[in-house]
Amino acid sequence: MYNVLGFCPKKLSLYKIALTHNSVHYRYNKNITKINNERLEFLGDSILGFLVAEKLYLKFPYQNEGFLTEMRSKIVGRNKLNAIGKKMGLMNLLKYDMKLSTNHSITDTLSGNALEAIVGAIYLDKGYQFTKDFINKKIFENYIDFETLIHEELSYKAKLIKWAQKEKRKIEYLVLSIEIENKKNVFNIQILLDGEMIVEGRNHSKKLAEELASQKYCNANNI
Amino acid sequence: MYNVLGFCPKKLSLYKIALTHNSVHYRYNKNITKINNERLEFLGDSILGFLVAEKLYLKFPYQNEGFLTEMRSKIVGRNKLNAIGKKMGLMNLLKYDMKLSTNHSITDTLSGNALEAIVGAIYLDKGYQFTKDFINKKIFENYIDFETLIHEELSYKAKLIKWAQKEKRKIEYLVLSIEIENKKNVFNIQILLDGEMIVEGRNHSKKLAEELASQKYCNANNI
Repeated sequence: MYNVLGFCPKKLSLYKIALTHNSVHYRYNKNITKINNERLEFLGDSILGFLVAEKLYLKFPYQNEGFLTEMRSKIVGRNKLNAIGKKMGLMNLLKYDMKLSTNHSITDTLSGNALEAIVGAIYLDKGYQFTKDFINKKIFENYIDFETLIHEELSYKAKLIKWAQKEKRKIEYLVLSIEIENKKNVFNIQILLDGEMIVEGRNHSKKLAEELASQKYCNANNI
Repeated sequence: MYNVLGFCPKKLSLYKIALTHNSVHYRYNKNITKINNERLEFLGDSILGFLVAEKLYLKFPYQNEGFLTEMRSKIVGRNKLNAIGKKMGLMNLLKYDMKLSTNHSITDTLSGNALEAIVGAIYLDKGYQFTKDFINKKIFENYIDFETLIHEELSYKAKLIKWAQKEKRKIEYLVLSIEIENKKNVFNIQILLDGEMIVEGRNHSKKLAEELASQKYCNANNI
């Protein structure tokens, strides 16, 4: 743990929880209880969102809130957080049910979620200033290149909508149906261009279904 | 200002910016510059999100992250923040173009946005601990009744989806078109029940268009 975090935790149990995915159960007080990292992930996500907002606010004093919002989305978005979590080596510390490893849509998000949970644990263990310093040194300095980020596209959906606006074409995202599979919603979405169906997407997450469909169309049409 | 906030600000200019809507321009360094409260609103929104997350994490140690997320949405949602901002008296301090006052969809959100911006200003002026104490005393203690909130519905859309799932009916939200009016998108949305159009909504915000349509249907059908 020290090698990954660069400091010695005080309340070790918090970090153990942060590194326990809900596919396994953390043994706490000699009982198998349903403790996992999802609550800490909730807390850590909000801390990261705040510290990234502050960083951007101070770093870009002449940019408007639209720019700041977009930059924050790029930093705390799933893809970026998963990549950072992996590079930090969190996957080596994370406890999860190995049966999951065949399901890429789940394993891809494990490291980003664990990173958020670790931030939550650090905050509860060491407080505000320590967490802020940790994020500055361990995340911003090592993994965030603000100049590159400025020019990075936000998402395929954003890209497609921007393109359509420029070309004065009408783009629509349509939820065709919501099915229930294994007790989870599955969204079938269609994208219409000037009223005509151009591509479909399907996923548990509506956002991801839209993103996948947008990506398919952008790639096929050099957008 | 002291009567509303309960303390004396150090950097008064921050609070002036926080209380300046983008319909007017704040006179800064003798120049009329485009300084308004939107950047501070961005910062304050993230601080509020974080401090509410921490409060909920500590207050409800046995609830899962789904509960915490829903509770946070109820507290930092537009309606609640607007109501709190109004009750605090922020509208009396806010500078905005009075021509706006005929447009309710804008004026309704002014007080919530100003509240977020004020939180951003307090954080920059007085730091983390002071802001946390302010939010605890001025917002949580005065305006948030956690027990009542638990039983409050999240939104009409959430209510309608929940109802449809219970009744095993298929509900779909469809973006019929996106028009551009006064350089802003206007979303026309339809809600389909088992494939049949039941209600329509129209707004600059897709979310609000969906919410308005859901509310119309819920109210008409005692959902």
